[in-house]
Amino acid sequence: MRETRVTMLRRMMPADANPAGNVFGGAILRYIDEVAGAVAERHSRANVVTAAIHRMDFLEPAFIGHMLHFDAVLAYTGRSSMDVRVEVHAENMRTGESVLTGTCWLTLVALNERGKPFLVPQVVAETEAEKRLWSEAKERRDGEKRK
Amino acid sequence: MRETRVTMLRRMMPADANPAGNVFGGAILRYIDEVAGAVAERHSRANVVTAAIHRMDFLEPAFIGHMLHFDAVLAYTGRSSMDVRVEVHAENMRTGESVLTGTCWLTLVALNERGKPFLVPQVVAETEAEKRLWSEAKERRDGEKRK
Amino acid sequence: MRETRVTMLRRMMPADANPAGNVFGGAILRYIDEVAGAVAERHSRANVVTAAIHRMDFLEPAFIGHMLHFDAVLAYTGRSSMDVRVEVHAENMRTGESVLTGTCWLTLVALNERGKPFLVPQVVAETEAEKRLWSEAKERRDGEKRK
Amino acid sequence: MRETRVTMLRRMMPADANPAGNVFGGAILRYIDEVAGAVAERHSRANVVTAAIHRMDFLEPAFIGHMLHFDAVLAYTGRSSMDVRVEVHAENMRTGESVLTGTCWLTLVALNERGKPFLVPQVVAETEAEKRLWSEAKERRDGEKRK
Amino acid sequence: MRETRVTMLRRMMPADANPAGNVFGGAILRYIDEVAGAVAERHSRANVVTAAIHRMDFLEPAFIGHMLHFDAVLAYTGRSSMDVRVEVHAENMRTGESVLTGTCWLTLVALNERGKPFLVPQVVAETEAEKRLWSEAKERRDGEKRK
Amino acid sequence: MRETRVTMLRRMMPADANPAGNVFGGAILRYIDEVAGAVAERHSRANVVTAAIHRMDFLEPAFIGHMLHFDAVLAYTGRSSMDVRVEVHAENMRTGESVLTGTCWLTLVALNERGKPFLVPQVVAETEAEKRLWSEAKERRDGEKRK
Repeated sequence: MRETRVTMLRRMMPADANPAGNVFGGAILRYIDEVAGAVAERHSRANVVTAAIHRMDFLEPAFIGHMLHFDAVLAYTGRSSMDVRVEVHAENMRTGESVLTGTCWLTLVALNERGKPFLVPQVVAETEAEKRLWSEAKERRDGEKRK
Repeated sequence: MRETRVTMLRRMMPADANPAGNVFGGAILRYIDEVAGAVAERHSRANVVTAAIHRMDFLEPAFIGHMLHFDAVLAYTGRSSMDVRVEVHAENMRTGESVLTGTCWLTLVALNERGKPFLVPQVVAETEAEKRLWSEAKERRDGEKRK
Repeated sequence: MRETRVTMLRRMMPADANPAGNVFGGAILRYIDEVAGAVAERHSRANVVTAAIHRMDFLEPAFIGHMLHFDAVLAYTGRSSMDVRVEVHAENMRTGESVLTGTCWLTLVALNERGKPFLVPQVVAETEAEKRLWSEAKERRDGEKRK
Repeated sequence: MRETRVTMLRRMMPADANPAGNVFGGAILRYIDEVAGAVAERHSRANVVTAAIHRMDFLEPAFIGHMLHFDAVLAYTGRSSMDVRVEVHAENMRTGESVLTGTCWLTLVALNERGKPFLVPQVVAETEAEKRLWSEAKERRDGEKRK
Repeated sequence: MRETRVTMLRRMMPADANPAGNVFGGAILRYIDEVAGAVAERHSRANVVTAAIHRMDFLEPAFIGHMLHFDAVLAYTGRSSMDVRVEVHAENMRTGESVLTGTCWLTLVALNERGKPFLVPQVVAETEAEKRLWSEAKERRDGEKRK
Repeated sequence: MRETRVTMLRRMMPADANPAGNVFGGAILRYIDEVAGAVAERHSRANVVTAAIHRMDFLEPAFIGHMLHFDAVLAYTGRSSMDVRVEVHAENMRTGESVLTGTCWLTLVALNERGKPFLVPQVVAETEAEKRLWSEAKERRDGEKRK
């Protein structure tokens, strides 16, 4: 699991602002989907599509000039699907302070050259923290099947 | 509830493409957040922020040149929070065919001029379809409280 | 004519601003061309190009944060050419007020797969308002021929 | 009049493409409005707004990779209004060939610091070509008043 | 050398701003690379790539609303390489004042259809100013070889 | 010096392409300036401007879909100036291969609230590799003073 980690940094520029002048939530979502796609494409060495966003919580606002850190990790693998967790921190470059802006779970699917899903390598959780992430993803999946 | 409906149309342009040439999921998320913000801002006549995306399912891919229809409606109101449901259809302009590309639930919060949440007007469900939407939102909320 | 109507909504974002901070006229023109192209492509089920803009009047300024409504309708058809009329309203999301920002007439041409113009289906004006639009387009065309 | 000329060059990039891969007419309109605004702002040394586009003809298509030349000149001045004519040529950088892509007439208005129109300096036509442009603008204006 | 000159004008728009509200240096670099590529592609009638930027000095800041003038000239040619010099001036449209914002030297290489460098026509310096530019480029090249 | 390191990742999207379809050199320069600004702003806790780019070598082309890694480090500090070195690698997400695309040296200056340069904390080179970077920057600076 550790090898799948990708951290993408993005300085928030005026083009990322909403009409009120803060960072637009939709801009953050766009970058989350970008980094999750990178994790899944690197793991599967294939074209990937986003199948679902399970939950995105916006915890604190971010402002223009902040450096956003998108930490993504592949937490769970099904047959052709991959569950990626992304944490977003906003760093104030002037003070050095960093706050957790949001967290997100996504499922992506790997497609072969004919556009069909195919078996992806399984991700392996090694540390305790990794195993917790893996279990959290599995529980959510099992919960959805029961519905 | 009917008066809160907003339909936003967007032609998918090359700038919306991912490296594989299809419409980038992150671009669709950005437009969903934009239309949901419009519904909530119009209803509350105030500045709004997105608090959470509960679930976004990407059902069918969309392609450059398609006209995307984002149909958003305010389905449920809490004290200061508003649950918006967005349906996305992709219309092929050459054939006239339209497919359901995705559905999404979001919660937004209205902020007053000091940046504090405040009471928003309650949305009223009138038709059967509206009442089903309202109940779907309420059940999801109650389920989250139980956790 | 009624079936050809397309309404495109666009929230004005900071990237749409001119150096003075209002919505840039050129940005509005870009969206007008986009919605007119959608009307003509949907009607002709073919690739279309814009041949001319006859007249665009900017009546009132629009501001960042406004929701712009682009209402387009196919008002007249020649052999391969289509005259589209676009009305632009700017809605202040806080007050609910809406003002007519501008109106525009465009002519678009449908091209077949070899890039040649071809016969498009004729548009039919049914209501009185539709017949007035059709006549307005025809008069302008006849006036141009006389020159 | 000669001193008011502005030539703006723009390489057409993939972000300027329409879904068919050519240069999007709306992108050209955006650049025309930008260069006309520069001519009028430089002449009036004030904030300007576009009041109308009288006529834009798209004569030849332009393609990604072409260098577009936007030649703008202030052709006529009213009390606070300025008529700008823009010619657009598309240069194929590989062959050196250049074709006239389109021509456009616009009227812009200068605003003082309270947002009110004010008297602008009159433009002076000196050469024969300049006098023809001036007369063409004046005739169009007189024709509109008669309506 | 005179025939290779290209002047590209760009109005600085809000999307060109850095978080402090001035024109972002990286935006200026992007336009410099664009105009240098136009000079080299027009001279070689071929696809070109940027091989190096030798030195870019930012002398004065530029602000949103300024018109930037990018004056580029082909100053020196090797076998397949072309040295382009770009001067950037920022014009305040309100006062008419113009300041030298920066200067830059770049080397570009022409590629044939198999992606290999090929012989480009030699540029000829005629005036004294042109000969000085040519010598400046040659000295820098000779100095680099000695290292 | 180690604490000043910033790694910014960016997936190359269609909007980053030049007309030939590769990643546009100017787009890479824009991201380099962005990451160097982040290093300098974080170190000085102040507003920064780019004063010069000393040398940028483009060693290998990058393609749309590649993940670009911008590794930036503060290598040398003068009184108010900061020399940042950026290395750019392009990672092919399908094969996992990564190539060195380019290297760049920049000088940035920290400005206080009145826009004047001020003393920045000195960077300290600890490891052998860091000392080599520091010396490389110092030699370049000394060489420029001799001119």
